[in-house]
Amino acid sequence: MSDARLTATYAVRADRASIAARAEALALEQSVEVPLAAVRDARVRDEVVARVESIAPRDDDRHDVRIAMAIETTGHEPGQLLNMLFGNSSLHDDVELSDVELPRSFAAGFGGPRFGIAGWRDAVGAAGRPLTCSALKPLGLSVDSLASLAGTLARAGIDVIKDDHGLADQQSAPFAARVAAVQRAIDAANRDTGGRTIYAPSLTGSLDAMRLQMKAACDARTGALMIAPMVSGVSTLAAVAREAGVPTLAHPALAGAARIAPPLLLGRLFRLFGADATIFPNAGGRFSYSPATCAAIARAARERWCGLAPALPVPAGGMGVERVPGMRATFGDDAMLLIGGSLLVAGDALEGRCRAFVAAVRDTAGTEHSGEAHR
Amino acid sequence: MSDARLTATYAVRADRASIAARAEALALEQSVEVPLAAVRDARVRDEVVARVESIAPRDDDRHDVRIAMAIETTGHEPGQLLNMLFGNSSLHDDVELSDVELPRSFAAGFGGPRFGIAGWRDAVGAAGRPLTCSALKPLGLSVDSLASLAGTLARAGIDVIKDDHGLADQQSAPFAARVAAVQRAIDAANRDTGGRTIYAPSLTGSLDAMRLQMKAACDARTGALMIAPMVSGVSTLAAVAREAGVPTLAHPALAGAARIAPPLLLGRLFRLFGADATIFPNAGGRFSYSPATCAAIARAARERWCGLAPALPVPAGGMGVERVPGMRATFGDDAMLLIGGSLLVAGDALEGRCRAFVAAVRDTAGTEHSGEAHR
Repeated sequence: MSDARLTATYAVRADRASIAARAEALALEQSVEVPLAAVRDARVRDEVVARVESIAPRDDDRHDVRIAMAIETTGHEPGQLLNMLFGNSSLHDDVELSDVELPRSFAAGFGGPRFGIAGWRDAVGAAGRPLTCSALKPLGLSVDSLASLAGTLARAGIDVIKDDHGLADQQSAPFAARVAAVQRAIDAANRDTGGRTIYAPSLTGSLDAMRLQMKAACDARTGALMIAPMVSGVSTLAAVAREAGVPTLAHPALAGAARIAPPLLLGRLFRLFGADATIFPNAGGRFSYSPATCAAIARAARERWCGLAPALPVPAGGMGVERVPGMRATFGDDAMLLIGGSLLVAGDALEGRCRAFVAAVRDTAGTEHSGEAHR
Repeated sequence: MSDARLTATYAVRADRASIAARAEALALEQSVEVPLAAVRDARVRDEVVARVESIAPRDDDRHDVRIAMAIETTGHEPGQLLNMLFGNSSLHDDVELSDVELPRSFAAGFGGPRFGIAGWRDAVGAAGRPLTCSALKPLGLSVDSLASLAGTLARAGIDVIKDDHGLADQQSAPFAARVAAVQRAIDAANRDTGGRTIYAPSLTGSLDAMRLQMKAACDARTGALMIAPMVSGVSTLAAVAREAGVPTLAHPALAGAARIAPPLLLGRLFRLFGADATIFPNAGGRFSYSPATCAAIARAARERWCGLAPALPVPAGGMGVERVPGMRATFGDDAMLLIGGSLLVAGDALEGRCRAFVAAVRDTAGTEHSGEAHR
């Protein structure tokens, strides 16, 4: 592949008789967006019009169509890259964007994770085991209740406490007041236990609003930040990751329906644009991702790719403590296991249930390895 | 409906035996995101947990599930509203978000279109007929070529010339240089013809990048701006619409796959967040939206709703001049007809083809009316 092109792979539903024409139409739609007859400029024809590289049947009645696209069309910008990969074709329900191959220098320009897996480990002081994560919820609790909950989770030794993705800047627990109080409660617990729990508040709204929130989080000295890139736009993720100064955790809200293969979107692209960790609904929970999809997300987040730091995969979504050994076996050490609601239903036994979660992760540590080379 | 709740309607694929439980799970997922047993706070149970209002079978093996959600969870912010409407449930492929009902005061808080249909008419001096629109493309042309094309379109009397949605801030035609040159070409044409063509350059990147682009557009005195809200994030659309000073045109890139009903997303929500016009793929073009869907998008953009100004529906996507009478009959006067590629294939006959487009719109004007009450 020349450095002037990237290659996008689409899964296209079309029969053998029509796939060649459909692939050509897709290449035009995702580059010049006019019939070829309307492209009179020789340079545009030669260097800008996307080219069908290969067409191969899949196992599922679809075809893999690989299309080489001119790097110059992306403007080296996250939102525009996504636009050129799938902007108009998202309106065609016979097409799924399944993968991209990027020239190394192009990918490096986006920067990828600033902290990566090593940064998460440094932040919480965890080596040789998965990290643990839980969530502050439900939405609607007061600042004091959320802070009290955070203190309990921290005393139990959870590594990363994140906001529920529904927590924003609501009246029931305004961002600045919540973040300050939650961080104080975690600081107090850390002093008591000698632990190093960190907090990832959820950023919402425009980049302006997020900058005010980042200022409040920085003032409170939170150790991480969370963002939902498909709600905020991936350009906003990239700006936040560049400015955050702490690891960023990507939430998949609004991402599931996008007909972009989850390993590509939640794994590769969120990593490319700077997410240091990526939450995804694990198989067997209350979402429908398959074990193979989940394994592919983890691989895309961690594998050696274009010199970018690896991002931490965060399986979640209806997990319970009894799932820890299985998740540990599936995802290995370089993962963060997120258990939320199933801890909270313990009521007064919450701290004990959290301790069981932490112990289960430490007990199984060191027995298996993901075996993937990073970078 | 109490002002403290909004009502979201979901089309859910589930049989009669399981739909009640599925609806309750959906209500929890889109509010507190924990099992009800984990909600110990009485206020949260009473005021924050979403409630299933009704379940009704549809014609298509699915059920309409209406869920009343607490307004307070939205933080009165566009991205967070979308998150609460469909953040996690986008990850469930048995659910489509099909409609929302908002209290009038809540909707008014978002502002809606600043200019609306009347603003577009004022800007181009068009009364009693649809507006005409065409696009600068293909991507990859130089600044001079794009400016020359814009001059031709303007001389032919096209009302609104927009950037192709693929045009961003690429090296082949950097934003600031392109916008200045294109606007100069349009100004020259307007002086020659006495016309009032305006230009809508496409904003891309983060809000920071868009602000620089808005400054360049403002310096060049462009009459409109375009943005793709599902790429940028809806919070960015709202910020841009608030600051633009000229009508904004929403592009549907990345929006088609979102499993949010197009009339709701492209019509109602983009309007709510400030778009003055909304482009959608018209039936019979190269996209697969049905005539009923297109009519519903136009209705959602224009109908009387919460005191918000109406937005201009912009049918597009593989339209040709021969489609003008049909589009005029379908959408009435209060529309902007967008024809791009099929004009450009005319080559040297481009200006004549554009004049035919303009004449076709003016010829059929005044014979039919959409008949919808606005605001």
